[in-house]
Amino acid sequence: MGLRQDADFIIREAIQRVLPDEAVAQALSGKQFGDGRLYVAAAGKAAWQMAKAASALLGDRIEAGVVVTKYDHVKGEIPRMRCFEAGHPVPDENSFAGTQAVLDMVSDLAAEDTVLFLLSGGGSALFEKPLIPGEELAGITKQLLACGADIVEMNTIRKRLSAVKGGKFAKLCEPAHVYSIVLSDILGDPLDMIASGPAYPDSADCAKAFAIAEKYGLKLSDKARKLLGQETPKELSNVETVITGSVRNLCAAAKEACETLGYRTVVLTDQLTCEAREAGAFLAAIAKSHQDGGESLAFIAGGETVVHLTGSGKGGRNQELALSAAVGIDGLKDTAVFSVGSDGTDGPTDAAGGYVDDGTARQLAEQNIDIYQVLQNNDAYHALEKSGGLIVTGATGTNVNDVAVLLIRA
Amino acid sequence: MGLRQDADFIIREAIQRVLPDEAVAQALSGKQFGDGRLYVAAAGKAAWQMAKAASALLGDRIEAGVVVTKYDHVKGEIPRMRCFEAGHPVPDENSFAGTQAVLDMVSDLAAEDTVLFLLSGGGSALFEKPLIPGEELAGITKQLLACGADIVEMNTIRKRLSAVKGGKFAKLCEPAHVYSIVLSDILGDPLDMIASGPAYPDSADCAKAFAIAEKYGLKLSDKARKLLGQETPKELSNVETVITGSVRNLCAAAKEACETLGYRTVVLTDQLTCEAREAGAFLAAIAKSHQDGGESLAFIAGGETVVHLTGSGKGGRNQELALSAAVGIDGLKDTAVFSVGSDGTDGPTDAAGGYVDDGTARQLAEQNIDIYQVLQNNDAYHALEKSGGLIVTGATGTNVNDVAVLLIRA
Repeated sequence: MGLRQDADFIIREAIQRVLPDEAVAQALSGKQFGDGRLYVAAAGKAAWQMAKAASALLGDRIEAGVVVTKYDHVKGEIPRMRCFEAGHPVPDENSFAGTQAVLDMVSDLAAEDTVLFLLSGGGSALFEKPLIPGEELAGITKQLLACGADIVEMNTIRKRLSAVKGGKFAKLCEPAHVYSIVLSDILGDPLDMIASGPAYPDSADCAKAFAIAEKYGLKLSDKARKLLGQETPKELSNVETVITGSVRNLCAAAKEACETLGYRTVVLTDQLTCEAREAGAFLAAIAKSHQDGGESLAFIAGGETVVHLTGSGKGGRNQELALSAAVGIDGLKDTAVFSVGSDGTDGPTDAAGGYVDDGTARQLAEQNIDIYQVLQNNDAYHALEKSGGLIVTGATGTNVNDVAVLLIRA
Repeated sequence: MGLRQDADFIIREAIQRVLPDEAVAQALSGKQFGDGRLYVAAAGKAAWQMAKAASALLGDRIEAGVVVTKYDHVKGEIPRMRCFEAGHPVPDENSFAGTQAVLDMVSDLAAEDTVLFLLSGGGSALFEKPLIPGEELAGITKQLLACGADIVEMNTIRKRLSAVKGGKFAKLCEPAHVYSIVLSDILGDPLDMIASGPAYPDSADCAKAFAIAEKYGLKLSDKARKLLGQETPKELSNVETVITGSVRNLCAAAKEACETLGYRTVVLTDQLTCEAREAGAFLAAIAKSHQDGGESLAFIAGGETVVHLTGSGKGGRNQELALSAAVGIDGLKDTAVFSVGSDGTDGPTDAAGGYVDDGTARQLAEQNIDIYQVLQNNDAYHALEKSGGLIVTGATGTNVNDVAVLLIRA
């Protein structure tokens, strides 16, 4: 089997493991919910798939459920569940209606009951009940963006202006138990950040919120100012959380697949955030120093790199990472680098990522393609098309960032 | 002992191992030169130190020697040796005179004789006998630079216009044996590139040389054109080469030092060439994914990163790498990143590199220093000065690129 076949196998195995269905199945495997009633609340871009998987596994055990997802993301009916399609990334009336349906469902539960909370990326907009008028909330968000507040500061403010964010949803479920299954699209899986943590304690206090308002001179109504002074939950004794789908799982699955193929495997990181083409150069540098080691090696780097546009070509961060690595691994022995987005979409292209090996640079040079110029023009797609290095998976239905792999065959 | 003390220990140990004296001592350890006469030819920026070390070890065994080094690099007399100081990076009359002295010394040797050839960075300019007038050679070099020829193409041409490069020096030593000790300043230790390989077979042939002349439309005299057609040595049966000082040794020594301190250690690469601040981000990403592993870990990346100037501050590639990593390791537990140039000089500063740990970013924030802005202004030196993160070693007398280390203490 060639290196490209190895790559395709690893990609298939890794993505398979972080599909919403698989993630839910893993988190529910062996899980007991006691004698009380079981409710499902699902919010986020993968909400429908996660709820569908839960329904398939738990069937009649589920009393009722509510799903709030993005437009066009409901693919059919699910027994006993109401499905809402709503606005993303900006919440709309449907977001609020869907969220209210969830709140109505959990408003009168008993201590032995359980809310199975299925959370995925996009939940911030899709699962929301603002405590101030929507227009005012939008205005504050705009102010925060304009003055360069970071995402942590932004969330510290917004959690206080919401009835469900910052652990408040879990509070509303009391005395029932909340079992939260999270498909994470944020590196490092910060549970208070994913969908603004509806079932996770808020780490910031009121003083912090006021300091941010002060720092940026935020214009706030009396009501909003008063809300900043109301403390968010700092402890939630009724919540259990499992992260099953995340870039960490993606990397772990890639590692297993590499090992199945006989590679000794090192997961370097699952939180890579640097410039895509420099990450490719770094992996190539690793390749250069691990030739002739007598054993097959794989190095894995998960995360989400960035691309600073310097041209107007077609490509994505995964394709740039791979193409950049092609320069450094040129002419090495049995060496390949590939990088792929778990959602199956890399940049505005129909490819999920890119694959290169020790022959790619020569292959492109023979077609008079200068890799450096291609990268300057952010046109990795067309170069990889010519080297046969595009990875196409189609939309996968999950989104847990990217994984890049360096393979060296002994 | 704190992380900074660990860093200082590792730096000291690593550089110690690649000092010219130490490199020569290692290469000569246990080495026998038979019954013939022994001559020393030393060329490069570290030539004097290498020759001095050889003299200390071999004493009267040495028949005679010639040293050609940079101006101000001869630090005293060496018994039985003539020392020349000459032009670098542009060769001058002294380079030619010193080189001629070497050639005169080796012109009439016997098969049982040995030339101990001590080579270090800078040898391309310092050890040279052009076969065309110096002015014409300078003109051709200028043409090659102007048309964007790479260093391999440049050397392919220049080796043919020189009486000593491209293995020709070793040919001139025949029938004597050549024992070549190399202190490498080029990543990957390409022996045909270091000082243009006076004692190493040339891998390019005449056809290649003519193709380059054609590709760039080089203007050449009849004599120069004729020289391109003269084949360089493709095999040298009288040469034995040992690379003792190189970034590979630097990394190996750093690894040993880390292990002495109890870190499980991985050498990621000794050929890192990417953007300095992105390398720092990559190391920080590795740090994030290796917290709480229950054991102390060290990751080593040797090489020579690059800096693209976007500002006018003071700093160097090692300082930028470290400062950039400070952002990513902010608040992690017992984590540090440092990077140091083996020559003791990082950029146009009096520092050899930089050290940061998990507290550095906060420390700088408290002084209202924005790391992102500092990097944009290429002003790492002043930020590291304020966090106590400058590494100062003074000039070390060696130059085998840089080493960066990530330390995570369990």
